[in-house]
Amino acid sequence: MDRRLILGAAAAVVPVALAAPALAQTQNPEIRWRLASSFPKNLDILFGGAEYLARRVAQMTENRFQIRCFAAGEIVPALQVLDALQTGTIECGQTSSLYYIGKDPTLAAFAAIPWGMNMRQMTAWMRYGGGNEIAAELYRDYNVVGIPFGETGTQMGGWFRKEIRGVDDLKGVKFRISGIAGQVFAKLGAAPTQIAASDIYPSLERGTIDAAEWIGPYDDEKLGFQRVAKYYYTPGFWDASSRGVFMMNNRAWEGLPDRYKHILEVACGEATLEMIARYDEANPKALRRLLAGGAQLKAWPREVLQAAWRATHELYEDTATQNPRFRKMWTNYKAFRDEQFQWFRVAENAYENFAFAAAAQR
Amino acid sequence: MDRRLILGAAAAVVPVALAAPALAQTQNPEIRWRLASSFPKNLDILFGGAEYLARRVAQMTENRFQIRCFAAGEIVPALQVLDALQTGTIECGQTSSLYYIGKDPTLAAFAAIPWGMNMRQMTAWMRYGGGNEIAAELYRDYNVVGIPFGETGTQMGGWFRKEIRGVDDLKGVKFRISGIAGQVFAKLGAAPTQIAASDIYPSLERGTIDAAEWIGPYDDEKLGFQRVAKYYYTPGFWDASSRGVFMMNNRAWEGLPDRYKHILEVACGEATLEMIARYDEANPKALRRLLAGGAQLKAWPREVLQAAWRATHELYEDTATQNPRFRKMWTNYKAFRDEQFQWFRVAENAYENFAFAAAAQR
Repeated sequence: MDRRLILGAAAAVVPVALAAPALAQTQNPEIRWRLASSFPKNLDILFGGAEYLARRVAQMTENRFQIRCFAAGEIVPALQVLDALQTGTIECGQTSSLYYIGKDPTLAAFAAIPWGMNMRQMTAWMRYGGGNEIAAELYRDYNVVGIPFGETGTQMGGWFRKEIRGVDDLKGVKFRISGIAGQVFAKLGAAPTQIAASDIYPSLERGTIDAAEWIGPYDDEKLGFQRVAKYYYTPGFWDASSRGVFMMNNRAWEGLPDRYKHILEVACGEATLEMIARYDEANPKALRRLLAGGAQLKAWPREVLQAAWRATHELYEDTATQNPRFRKMWTNYKAFRDEQFQWFRVAENAYENFAFAAAAQR
Repeated sequence: MDRRLILGAAAAVVPVALAAPALAQTQNPEIRWRLASSFPKNLDILFGGAEYLARRVAQMTENRFQIRCFAAGEIVPALQVLDALQTGTIECGQTSSLYYIGKDPTLAAFAAIPWGMNMRQMTAWMRYGGGNEIAAELYRDYNVVGIPFGETGTQMGGWFRKEIRGVDDLKGVKFRISGIAGQVFAKLGAAPTQIAASDIYPSLERGTIDAAEWIGPYDDEKLGFQRVAKYYYTPGFWDASSRGVFMMNNRAWEGLPDRYKHILEVACGEATLEMIARYDEANPKALRRLLAGGAQLKAWPREVLQAAWRATHELYEDTATQNPRFRKMWTNYKAFRDEQFQWFRVAENAYENFAFAAAAQR
């Protein structure tokens, strides 16, 4: 029926209680979405980021747009969020595009790649360097739309049972590390393995693996690694920043009124700032506790960093030769990264090198 | 009249066209605010940030909450935004709390202080370190509410007609720099002066001043400093990050429905991410153009940095002795800063030092 008819001539016979919500609904429909997260509840800053986002969206819509968050495995297995979104089983998810590099390694670029950009540089690349456009093109193939959401900052390099004094010490080391970073370590002679989070601690304890990387002090502390692998290496050069994504089934996104689309875009940006603030506040305190508990902080030997830099860039060149989408991404990413790296040396890094050291001397 | 009465028994006699907007209005009132910015239109990323914020707020409220942005001087002089908000002449403003240190030097901490925290550290401090609470306590005295909004990143150290080889070369140098940083340079023997943006170039050209600091490459380029003072120093250790603020008259804020308050909070956070992304994208290109145009990039001599570090901390201790609010802020800020500085050395800085240099060698 033509709605104008109801509001016009026939108005007097239509109960107000029905007509009023009808008007409100066009501006502000009631929507209930389910969010499947790739992260468990105990990663409380990561999964808490999804809950924060949902709360913000509800607040900005007077609870009319409600997103109910489910932790990894509750309704969708941790690493199948993209698949569930593609088929439309759920409307939205919190995940990392890194988890789907089996489909296309290019997807890693929107989360983290070895020797990649830091948090601010990633933000600039996604928004103003073409990153979001390249991501959208790939996501379209999986019937999803993604908005960057969530960030850990530079992660740590992982826990080792034995000290690593040079590249030779990596030979045959069974290192729990996945994806492109795993390939880089394989090139350096290590034996990368993928095991689930809950198996890392017992595997390290039994010696089934020799080393494992996870996230950073705050999250690592919960798993107790320092008790079974005391050497804590830094930095995680494969996670200079790690950007999450709020992903939606394309039809669910298209069905939203513009207002809700804007609200999601803005909320994802603000929730990213919120998440990195929580990590930055929590990590130093956790690191102090870890060190007090026996962890030994170690910087990667320069030789390892140099070999990893070379191996990574060879790998990218090889992948680009075989995969046109990776080539397109990497050409764009590398040019932007190198310019950002050069610029950040001028002001940010010059400042930080002096100031961080000066504060430590007092 | 009791609204339930209208919606109940008397429903049939109330015209629908009146009743429906009445309901919508309680959720989503029409609000028109004027925003006075401290920044001129030609600082297009800064002032553009206010316009971006206003656009986002309008999008999230279907244009019902509209903020009209006025550049510095259009309705309020650049440095009197806080005063106009205090008296309620306008509802909101975009400014820097740094501009009001004449009222209380403590206010600088929510924008930038010499040897302060970087962008991420500031965000963590404001949200999780007590910064926002300390700010709110001060703002209350001026009858305003502030939400952190906007960010430049680490700024440059300014343009000098002559090279600075050590602290002695600063003696008597007429340096256009204001606020606490000006006091630090005075302690180093320089002669800080405050002049308006439009007077900087002619003053440098005539030699009325010897040096001037402004913002960073993208903004500095517009003023043409490289033609009259070719030595471009880095870093601007008094602006490791510079955080703006969206300030409101307290009554205007309190009059907003909760939904709009949430929308403003979230929009300010997202607009901060947007602004720093724009700066990070624009600055490297501008720096390259400046260098091609004859600017000579110079790092501060280590002696100058060391002397400035000492002078700054002496100044803070002195100010803290005289001003209990400054003491409260500085005690809190310094503890948080020192912890952040220590932590950022572990992962972020270790990563960046290697990666930035490695990329430059290729």
